[in-house]
Amino acid sequence: MTDRFSFHLLGTDGGARRGEIRLPRGAIRTPAFMPVGTAGTVKAMYPDQVRALGADIILGNTYHLMLRPGAERVARLGGLHVFANWPHPILTDSGGFQVMSLAQLRKLDETGVTFQSHVDGSRHVLTPERSVEIQLLLDSDIIMQLDECVRLPAEEAEVARAMRLSLRWAERSKRAFGERPDRAIFGIVQGGDVAHLRIESARELAAMDFPGYSVGGLAVGEPQAVMLAMLETTNPVLPADKPRYLMGVGTPDDIIESVARGIDMFDCVMPTRAGRHGLAYTRFGKINLKNARHAEDSRPLDEASDCPAARDYSRAYLHHLFKTDEMLGAMLLSWNNLAYYQALMAGIRAAIDERRFEDFRRTTKEGWERGDLPAAA
Amino acid sequence: MTDRFSFHLLGTDGGARRGEIRLPRGAIRTPAFMPVGTAGTVKAMYPDQVRALGADIILGNTYHLMLRPGAERVARLGGLHVFANWPHPILTDSGGFQVMSLAQLRKLDETGVTFQSHVDGSRHVLTPERSVEIQLLLDSDIIMQLDECVRLPAEEAEVARAMRLSLRWAERSKRAFGERPDRAIFGIVQGGDVAHLRIESARELAAMDFPGYSVGGLAVGEPQAVMLAMLETTNPVLPADKPRYLMGVGTPDDIIESVARGIDMFDCVMPTRAGRHGLAYTRFGKINLKNARHAEDSRPLDEASDCPAARDYSRAYLHHLFKTDEMLGAMLLSWNNLAYYQALMAGIRAAIDERRFEDFRRTTKEGWERGDLPAAA
Ligand SMILES: [Zn+2]
Ligand SMILES: [Zn+2]
Repeated sequence: MTDRFSFHLLGTDGGARRGEIRLPRGAIRTPAFMPVGTAGTVKAMYPDQVRALGADIILGNTYHLMLRPGAERVARLGGLHVFANWPHPILTDSGGFQVMSLAQLRKLDETGVTFQSHVDGSRHVLTPERSVEIQLLLDSDIIMQLDECVRLPAEEAEVARAMRLSLRWAERSKRAFGERPDRAIFGIVQGGDVAHLRIESARELAAMDFPGYSVGGLAVGEPQAVMLAMLETTNPVLPADKPRYLMGVGTPDDIIESVARGIDMFDCVMPTRAGRHGLAYTRFGKINLKNARHAEDSRPLDEASDCPAARDYSRAYLHHLFKTDEMLGAMLLSWNNLAYYQALMAGIRAAIDERRFEDFRRTTKEGWERGDLPAAA
Repeated sequence: MTDRFSFHLLGTDGGARRGEIRLPRGAIRTPAFMPVGTAGTVKAMYPDQVRALGADIILGNTYHLMLRPGAERVARLGGLHVFANWPHPILTDSGGFQVMSLAQLRKLDETGVTFQSHVDGSRHVLTPERSVEIQLLLDSDIIMQLDECVRLPAEEAEVARAMRLSLRWAERSKRAFGERPDRAIFGIVQGGDVAHLRIESARELAAMDFPGYSVGGLAVGEPQAVMLAMLETTNPVLPADKPRYLMGVGTPDDIIESVARGIDMFDCVMPTRAGRHGLAYTRFGKINLKNARHAEDSRPLDEASDCPAARDYSRAYLHHLFKTDEMLGAMLLSWNNLAYYQALMAGIRAAIDERRFEDFRRTTKEGWERGDLPAAA
């Protein structure tokens, strides 16, 4: 165990990086996928299940937690790790992104953002300083600066304005965070789909010397090619000895392509959200269990998987659970999907270790392209 | 392992009976509580969790399963045990009770009951013969005869009519079941709250020599005292060497009082349904986790419990999960409640074995009466 945050670049293979983040609460093997525990729970999963799948860290949403149960309440209850029964590292976002997508009557100015809760209409103010304070009350191990994220497509002037505001908020966030070697604050690169704005943002943030860097404002409506181009533009500007986190991404293909371009950390609601809607991620692509073709298919999702959800239940049974709206359906597919994502990350890490990432990337994509098994006879 | 159904009365303590049902798929320690797996899933629980709590048998609902996914489909998929990933014994009801409570446009006559599905309005017929056929298609280990259950209070003439119809259906059900030593069919005692009708029903069924007997038509609106009086009337008429199952019962107190009167088997949706609604069963009575008094209570439900759901999560966290409608709330309280019910049954069985059932009954009730811990300071 260590008493301070540190990042260790263990090796590279092409653009792909293999590393380890060390924190007092445990190590994070990178590239890492962080399951999203929105309101202090990775939906439809017990925390020890999430851990057993190989997750070293989960993400908590500041917006949801500041509204319910409230940051001060979580602090009085011993912090988010104690509250959510997850003793391992936790990363929190700043709340800004979800204020913009969920809250009502938003008003953003230089100071911060004022909004009404989507739960009960109560008024809240989120400034860079308050966001850091909330994340520290939650006892988060990796904290995000408050930023402004613009949905794409957007005018360049608007993207530039939000990026420069985010830079000023980065400074304020870092100052509010202070000296806390036992945890970290990450600066967030913005700049939309405009290469020179991304470079400006990354350069300015690098000059502020953050312990880690996030890439924000991607996977917000633009084509994958645009996202990957922005990574190719941004990553070379970021210091190689600091971790890089691509926020809110993504599909398995997004992840493998972003790893190829030097990203170390990911989070996404996709595996759990898709699981609640009857979609299973597998080696052979995505399977919609609601489809009638599965109604009498006695085969499991993937008999070669280690995960009981993939191996021990028939497609017919999973189909039935979704048709009858039984909770076990969401429980099993969330489990299967997080297992698939964690197995993908373990595969990526092993491939980089053994300098065969390109091979892994190709064979993994061939599996997805092969598609699902033919329908049962 | 055995290749046939049998019941063994291992001992008694006052009116309480300790026994074992043996079936090719496993033994059932009695008194037993059967978790309800309505549509082939004990709601919000993985099957191996249910098993690990000590459940030797679960119940499936013929009405739900005949509508979705359909009995013939379950048969083609290898039967309910394979379908639901539960290789241990399963008891199924006849479907009659739920036709009467859930289906639309019901029409009951001597032949059986015609109804429309509450799911899609499709027309179905349930006769004693078809109910047995469906339960055999499901590959049920313990099958119920079709009966007519009358809600109380009701006119004696109406209760008598339904009871005698149920007797005629008992004969038809038994004939349709035929000779199947590897499983069992139970006759169902009816007669509402009328002692002489209960006696007539039990006597007639005993004469038909069923492998086991259910007591139906109780816990349908009458006071507990009436239910217990009916058990005192009925049980002495039933053969001592056959198991006795009190259908759809009940609260922990109903169970302990019914065991005292010679009942061997129980089922009830209460632990899982209550769990989904934020109610926890504990040694110290029922706790409503939605109540604001738990919002900052860092204590677990019961630190002395073996069940992680009772021991490893704070009341404050459980409160939060129900306030935010998170699935994990239902998952944890269903788990806690089934754990409590199974621990209660294990306690009852040990107490009868050691001939201290009266003592167990008294101290258990004292615990419930003590009530929950005082609110946290
Ligand atoms: Zn996402
Ligand atoms: Zn009940």
